[in-house]
Amino acid sequence: MIKQTELAELGEFKLISRLTKNFSATHKNTVYAIGDDCAVLAKTKQAHTLITTDLLMEGIHFDLMFTPLKHLGYKAVVVNLSDIYAMNGTPEHITVSIAVSAKFTVEALEELYEGIALACKAYSVDLIGGDTSASLTGLAISITAVGTVNPKSITYRNTAKKNDLICVSGDVGAAYAGLQIMQREKTVFQQSKGAQPKLEGYEYSIQRYLKPEARADVIQNLADASIIPTAMIDVSDGVSSELLHICSQSNVGCRIYEERIPIHKNTQKIAQEFEMEAIIPALNGGEDYELLFTIPIEQHEHIKTIPDVHIIGSITEQEQGLYMISRSGSPIAIQAQGWTAFE
Amino acid sequence: MIKQTELAELGEFKLISRLTKNFSATHKNTVYAIGDDCAVLAKTKQAHTLITTDLLMEGIHFDLMFTPLKHLGYKAVVVNLSDIYAMNGTPEHITVSIAVSAKFTVEALEELYEGIALACKAYSVDLIGGDTSASLTGLAISITAVGTVNPKSITYRNTAKKNDLICVSGDVGAAYAGLQIMQREKTVFQQSKGAQPKLEGYEYSIQRYLKPEARADVIQNLADASIIPTAMIDVSDGVSSELLHICSQSNVGCRIYEERIPIHKNTQKIAQEFEMEAIIPALNGGEDYELLFTIPIEQHEHIKTIPDVHIIGSITEQEQGLYMISRSGSPIAIQAQGWTAFE
Repeated sequence: MIKQTELAELGEFKLISRLTKNFSATHKNTVYAIGDDCAVLAKTKQAHTLITTDLLMEGIHFDLMFTPLKHLGYKAVVVNLSDIYAMNGTPEHITVSIAVSAKFTVEALEELYEGIALACKAYSVDLIGGDTSASLTGLAISITAVGTVNPKSITYRNTAKKNDLICVSGDVGAAYAGLQIMQREKTVFQQSKGAQPKLEGYEYSIQRYLKPEARADVIQNLADASIIPTAMIDVSDGVSSELLHICSQSNVGCRIYEERIPIHKNTQKIAQEFEMEAIIPALNGGEDYELLFTIPIEQHEHIKTIPDVHIIGSITEQEQGLYMISRSGSPIAIQAQGWTAFE
Repeated sequence: MIKQTELAELGEFKLISRLTKNFSATHKNTVYAIGDDCAVLAKTKQAHTLITTDLLMEGIHFDLMFTPLKHLGYKAVVVNLSDIYAMNGTPEHITVSIAVSAKFTVEALEELYEGIALACKAYSVDLIGGDTSASLTGLAISITAVGTVNPKSITYRNTAKKNDLICVSGDVGAAYAGLQIMQREKTVFQQSKGAQPKLEGYEYSIQRYLKPEARADVIQNLADASIIPTAMIDVSDGVSSELLHICSQSNVGCRIYEERIPIHKNTQKIAQEFEMEAIIPALNGGEDYELLFTIPIEQHEHIKTIPDVHIIGSITEQEQGLYMISRSGSPIAIQAQGWTAFE
């Protein structure tokens, strides 16, 4: 009998490497293919083209019970642009494909496209194409973003160096906290028909979940200060998962410090309500779309002048492993959370 | 009350134009955005970049009851490459995103990727990225293809001229005929459990449906003969629908001749079995992935030297409308079949 392996046995990253192991690049303009935030194609001496794509499925990536279509359209664009910024690039174009079931009206789709248009305007991106089709159940959105980057300042994941400082922008864990509130209020609403959701006091985290922004401002500020990160990734699956990508691909280890992880007070409040340590969503929550990057330790004084960027630790030799030093001083191994969508 | 419009009222093309009416291009390297087989971006003086994308949904675009995953992977790539050829370009890169429900095993997805790899090899295309995610229901595949084209030989849809000859490659209607056979045998199988499908004698049409090829050879032969079509499109929705695109976007009319439409004898045999005129699937069947193009009448002698290309009519003034002249000599208006997936 032929062996049958369930998807949950592998997880996303092992699955991708197994499915793509027989592919190899044949075009000399293929600079970098699978394995980073974007693929990289040679364009001119001064510019590479960046390409990234995402496929969002209703019920997996979004819940229309509490996600307004306009927000969904905005977010679907932003999460792709975030991947372009994570290569230190500038997004310029997107394609948008949707598949919709008959339950959607034209007016509903117009709301979705209003959000897409808002994101295009906010980030100076042109919508250049796409596909529109039917779906048997629910909504699927596939976006491809195309950007440009100077080959001299492109930032991969696999180039972090020993002693580099590890930095993260903004704060982390808020999107996950916001999602917990939305899911709690959905359950209350479903159990007692007509109960109005209580969202007051959670606005910051809910906004971070429903309408995230890509950190174009951080990329601009780094460029203005002539700081080119040695490695960079955007925080879509959580700080732990992204650190694991950078460290395993760069063959290095890391030490980060719990007290230095930036957590918003609204995230802390929600974590407390859910009787959870705030560091858990901060490390493993995902969907923050902040930038996690490394810089040479010599840039220490320069990075402190960049607003909203926090040094959370440093890169070590690979043999030293990946650890977070807790507030009490204990080293805690940073675990692969993996991808549990198939479980 | 806010007006709610059902999707079926509009159809695909009116829906796209309504959803995208508020978007405008801001980047000067955006040469052509929505409305052709590909978007066109300026790269260098000698080359434009072409981008096209498709989103395929289980139950809408494919039926896994009779579509082997390896064929599906191959076809999903080919239909995108066909759009690059339809701009007179050369495909170079693809991204592949999939969303899968837990019913799929790793081995099943490996079959899908074997088909993708075969197509990449056959057409010299590099897989450079994608996304892998879960789905609540079935399989979704989104592919983006990137290609290159010389700006001097790019072929749009909106540049057909009066008196141009209309040409189509290969034969049309076979894929639709093949699909009818597969659906008939599926019904027989479901009604009498265990009945083996009868596919002998239908191989040509079934192959055209399950494993179509993009006409890279035709593009090469045209280039070798220094023929640059005045307009071109690939036949994904049927000859009628594609002719309507070319004529409406070029502000011209057309006359095509029933007797000149290339129909394979296997398509004719199947049409007869289903008591249908073979011209119906030939004009409206879709999924042929042949090339429909126009050339200046001066190229009449040259085009006859290109193998597997058929002159089916000519472009007229817009006022003369779009007509097929039947075998008996009667003009029959070419109708928009529109897009019925939402109905």
